[in-house]
Amino acid sequence: MAAGFRIDALAAAVDRLASGRLAATLHGDASRQVDGVAPLAEAGPTQLSFLANRAYRMAAAATRAGAVVLAPKERQALFDGLSEAPTLIDCANPYAWFAFAAQLLAPDARVVGGVAAGAQLAADADVDRSARIDANAVVEAGAVVAAGCWIGAGAVVGRDARIGAGSRLHPRAAVLSGCVLGARVIVHSGAVIGADGFGFAPLDGRWIKIPQTGRVLIGDDVEIGANTTIDRGAMGDTVLEEGVKLDNQIHVAHNCRIGAHSVLAACIGIAGSASVGRGCQIGGAAMIAGHLSIADGTVIGPGTLVSRTIAEPGHFTGFFPLMRHGDWERNAAALRHLAELRARVRALEGRDRNGESGDG
Amino acid sequence: MAAGFRIDALAAAVDRLASGRLAATLHGDASRQVDGVAPLAEAGPTQLSFLANRAYRMAAAATRAGAVVLAPKERQALFDGLSEAPTLIDCANPYAWFAFAAQLLAPDARVVGGVAAGAQLAADADVDRSARIDANAVVEAGAVVAAGCWIGAGAVVGRDARIGAGSRLHPRAAVLSGCVLGARVIVHSGAVIGADGFGFAPLDGRWIKIPQTGRVLIGDDVEIGANTTIDRGAMGDTVLEEGVKLDNQIHVAHNCRIGAHSVLAACIGIAGSASVGRGCQIGGAAMIAGHLSIADGTVIGPGTLVSRTIAEPGHFTGFFPLMRHGDWERNAAALRHLAELRARVRALEGRDRNGESGDG
Amino acid sequence: MAAGFRIDALAAAVDRLASGRLAATLHGDASRQVDGVAPLAEAGPTQLSFLANRAYRMAAAATRAGAVVLAPKERQALFDGLSEAPTLIDCANPYAWFAFAAQLLAPDARVVGGVAAGAQLAADADVDRSARIDANAVVEAGAVVAAGCWIGAGAVVGRDARIGAGSRLHPRAAVLSGCVLGARVIVHSGAVIGADGFGFAPLDGRWIKIPQTGRVLIGDDVEIGANTTIDRGAMGDTVLEEGVKLDNQIHVAHNCRIGAHSVLAACIGIAGSASVGRGCQIGGAAMIAGHLSIADGTVIGPGTLVSRTIAEPGHFTGFFPLMRHGDWERNAAALRHLAELRARVRALEGRDRNGESGDG
Repeated sequence: MAAGFRIDALAAAVDRLASGRLAATLHGDASRQVDGVAPLAEAGPTQLSFLANRAYRMAAAATRAGAVVLAPKERQALFDGLSEAPTLIDCANPYAWFAFAAQLLAPDARVVGGVAAGAQLAADADVDRSARIDANAVVEAGAVVAAGCWIGAGAVVGRDARIGAGSRLHPRAAVLSGCVLGARVIVHSGAVIGADGFGFAPLDGRWIKIPQTGRVLIGDDVEIGANTTIDRGAMGDTVLEEGVKLDNQIHVAHNCRIGAHSVLAACIGIAGSASVGRGCQIGGAAMIAGHLSIADGTVIGPGTLVSRTIAEPGHFTGFFPLMRHGDWERNAAALRHLAELRARVRALEGRDRNGESGDG
Repeated sequence: MAAGFRIDALAAAVDRLASGRLAATLHGDASRQVDGVAPLAEAGPTQLSFLANRAYRMAAAATRAGAVVLAPKERQALFDGLSEAPTLIDCANPYAWFAFAAQLLAPDARVVGGVAAGAQLAADADVDRSARIDANAVVEAGAVVAAGCWIGAGAVVGRDARIGAGSRLHPRAAVLSGCVLGARVIVHSGAVIGADGFGFAPLDGRWIKIPQTGRVLIGDDVEIGANTTIDRGAMGDTVLEEGVKLDNQIHVAHNCRIGAHSVLAACIGIAGSASVGRGCQIGGAAMIAGHLSIADGTVIGPGTLVSRTIAEPGHFTGFFPLMRHGDWERNAAALRHLAELRARVRALEGRDRNGESGDG
Repeated sequence: MAAGFRIDALAAAVDRLASGRLAATLHGDASRQVDGVAPLAEAGPTQLSFLANRAYRMAAAATRAGAVVLAPKERQALFDGLSEAPTLIDCANPYAWFAFAAQLLAPDARVVGGVAAGAQLAADADVDRSARIDANAVVEAGAVVAAGCWIGAGAVVGRDARIGAGSRLHPRAAVLSGCVLGARVIVHSGAVIGADGFGFAPLDGRWIKIPQTGRVLIGDDVEIGANTTIDRGAMGDTVLEEGVKLDNQIHVAHNCRIGAHSVLAACIGIAGSASVGRGCQIGGAAMIAGHLSIADGTVIGPGTLVSRTIAEPGHFTGFFPLMRHGDWERNAAALRHLAELRARVRALEGRDRNGESGDG
């Protein structure tokens, strides 16, 4: 359990974490103690909450939270002159300030090194003494687990894999042989980093396996969701640059590259050798075909199949809209003959023009 | 292995399981012994089968099963006056009767408590003596495993998690810290209950993690498929009400709620804070956008993206119909200009009307 | 680490693996030693590379690889008369030759039997002495693990399951009770073979579980991707015939059958009792509805929902094309009224024809 913070100490700690990018001003009792976070409507006097969306202004005005972080304008509108307000933290980006504060208040914030019962560490694995290895985890030969890592119950670190400082593998995550994680990487349960890519050569109606000898290279501050899979490269490597965030149940095929700070929602599939730029945002269940590239800063809607290179950033979408089933049946039937319908309209236009010209 | 039942004893046991909701009448030799179930075409004289679909009437007439459960009308049509019929069980809902009977005949029906080699139980975990813990499973500190549970090989019960009576975690399932399961919950292999939700605050082109401090709360009699993931709430909880059935490879994001007795087929994704009503049926690979709600009793077709709230129940669909590839190319190309085509039709209609009025 | 091969010895070994189906001719120094593979642009003098796609001819001409396998025509065009060429291996199917050679050069090529610390083998499990069982793996009662198998860290072989000779379960793969794998099957990490199918009988708004008592039967030389799930049959079996290749995160429901040498890309879902023919190729994220069949040799595009039986092979597709978001909004809105638009065009055509006939 986190010990809690005085609000002024918390603000100082957030300022350090944010490297000074989040100026904040305290209003009210800065000596109050907070020990957790909660939504505005549920927070009590020892909890911190936040207002980042105007839809929650009523909840903010009525909150019993001990402290609230919010934009200066909102503070003035909602709390100016009130005597019984929570301690208020003015910040132009209240959601980011709240994120850092919540990290400091999280019960998991400190890792205590040690090896639990049933964990199997190969004799020549290099596991830092400050790392925590939970029950029945496995660290194979030649692997490196750096300072401050937390390897959860039943997780596997494969032969010669390297886990950077401060990283966390949640229970049953797997980082397979030779893969390399940067610092502060989070891998959620069931994720598999470094399974073989899907590569076969056809021969007489059969498929001959191409051994997959590349690695997965993952930059600092990447987060990988539960049951997401990232395949190793066929010969070269599969690369996730720093700050990439992947949600659950995503598939990243061999030799893909995902640019720094891109965010991918759940259930996305990316086929082999595709390249996603930096700062992209990809919606859930989108699918990206192989051997193409997507420009930096591109936004892809949910359920959208990207079948060609996107050279200039933009917002792209492509999913069939929701309909009542009967409407869908009729419209889908018409869609089967859409090209023909277009030809019929052209024919009508032609006759029309002929008629017009005939009139002239 | 199940010991088997006399058919009259089996019928009595089904009646108890069904709380009297499934009236049934036996015809023929009620003292016959059955020890398993099989399809009509494959069943032998010690096996029970069922007829619930008219397409299988021929198979029923020819079956060698020891007993068959079926609707009274079918019994009369197929077997009336025959001397060599199987023992017949009349029931208005033969499939449900069969389901209960098959549960009783299943080889796994009884759990014998005990802790297998390599299982790691934290000193302060509260594991009931009647629970069965298989090889290399892990029960972390503060967790509760109630009477009659079966925790499969390599499964993980996280810190302070609670598993209700009679629940089963199949091999390598994971219920993470603080999550709560009701009674008789089944979690299949590879499922992950309680990974972090996907929550980040943007700051200068980077993404700051919002710690996910909520739980997953799962009601009685819920079943969760293999490699399905259900994320913990960001601050509040993610909730599955009683009787919900989730197939494999489903993603349920943070703070979703799924109403009682809803059934979701495989590969569905549900984004954050979405609410699915009671008694809904969602087709495979459907996708549900975040922060919306779906009315009780709604039916969603497969492959359908639900992008808006559905306030009144109905049957909704939205997937691109299957076509020969050449047709798809032509129709998809026309679809890119459909709005323009509609405008052209409007123009033709306008001229037509002008022409008509000119004729007048 | 693989010891490496003289090129002439490697060629002889490939010839044996390919059973003589891949005639090859060596040009240049056949006594050179190679110990690994690399892409043309990165290979060094002890590495083998290949040219199978004309797009890489420039890279081939400039390669520093010790050996290159390529079509005879390409060898002549690129290297004829050059004094400093790599050792060249002429083969009409260079990619397949390369695949076999890479298998021989792979560091994992030989399995040394033994049982690692923390592995739990039931007393009556039948594990061949030549099998390798890694740390914390579990082999349950009655299971059979044949000669030359490699069971990775934390993997589970369920009660009475049978793993054929030379098969490999990667770390944390699970083959559940009673399932049967042929020879040389590869199951990647997180895959689950034999979870319960999704079968329930409705009763008064609730769902009664149908115990799933069938098995999964998998033929020789099948490969199953990371986090893929294949459910056991409800009463009969789910079957994958020999040589089937499944990518990651695929869902195969109960009682499906997949024909020999079919290839399925990632994120596919196949509903219950569907039957996919031999030699099919199914694109990523395709979805196949239940109780239908797909003819041998059918090709299905990515993201396509197969909602009806395909009786004759062909190439089928059905996904919504990618558009700029604004275009999508307009076109999707028009799609909601497509059937009506078709009716309007018919009306225009009718008037037109009336007009024409009136002109006659």
